[in-house]
Amino acid sequence: MLPLLLRLDHVGIACRDLDAAIGRYEATFGLQVVSLEVNEAQGVREAMLAVGVSGASGASVADLRPGYVQLLEPLGPDTPVGRFLTRRGEGLHHVGYGVQDIGQALAAIGVRGVRLLDERPRHGSMGASIAFLHPADLGGVLTELVQAAGPA
Amino acid sequence: MLPLLLRLDHVGIACRDLDAAIGRYEATFGLQVVSLEVNEAQGVREAMLAVGVSGASGASVADLRPGYVQLLEPLGPDTPVGRFLTRRGEGLHHVGYGVQDIGQALAAIGVRGVRLLDERPRHGSMGASIAFLHPADLGGVLTELVQAAGPA
Repeated sequence: MLPLLLRLDHVGIACRDLDAAIGRYEATFGLQVVSLEVNEAQGVREAMLAVGVSGASGASVADLRPGYVQLLEPLGPDTPVGRFLTRRGEGLHHVGYGVQDIGQALAAIGVRGVRLLDERPRHGSMGASIAFLHPADLGGVLTELVQAAGPA
Repeated sequence: MLPLLLRLDHVGIACRDLDAAIGRYEATFGLQVVSLEVNEAQGVREAMLAVGVSGASGASVADLRPGYVQLLEPLGPDTPVGRFLTRRGEGLHHVGYGVQDIGQALAAIGVRGVRLLDERPRHGSMGASIAFLHPADLGGVLTELVQAAGPA
């Protein structure tokens, strides 16, 4: 049986100026933007920069997916990332783990005493289905589950 | 030529009580501890919990390495993680990326305007050579480079 969390999918980083942050990651590390999106529902403009590949333990090469640095600029101050920037400043915002079936994962986690910020999956980057778990139940870590688009 | 950052290696999470944090990650996600160490030089007691595998883009299965959640409990308040907890509370502390050759990576990054917190690699988890980059030059993100023990 596959574990609940298959792999490190991405780290989400809050920034005030997305273009400047992209420039910094390109210039420092040679990372490249593979997706640039506005997600109105989440109140962010975001870039995904690919960092290697990841997969479940024992995965074949065909099952590997890219890992990402996700850079997040809020669309305004009264958004989750906007409020984070006001409260904490720029920096690490959340971590995302790949799951095979997000509906099953939420059902399993919901009965283990961790509150779900999203009872049902919603639209994430690059066509993924995502859901967030409450940081207060995970040692202050905002945690995202990601079922990537296409076969898991 | 391989990119500078090969893969997502780990997320580092600061916690007040390592045993409680381990219990939470085991119970919620079914993750398992693969290494438990005290690093006196860094002032932490830490656990590595494996999450899938990761590698450079185009890697063969043989080149894949585990990804990790790294849980960090400070050995005292006057340590880097202890000060982080006082200032920010529990939560995401840093992100670690795998590199092929940490000496070459530090030399390359040092000339790109990012300050190195470690001019020379030091001892990290599970025999790795590691070095930290200054968060003030990377949008508030404490960033670690990891050359895993053994062949990259």
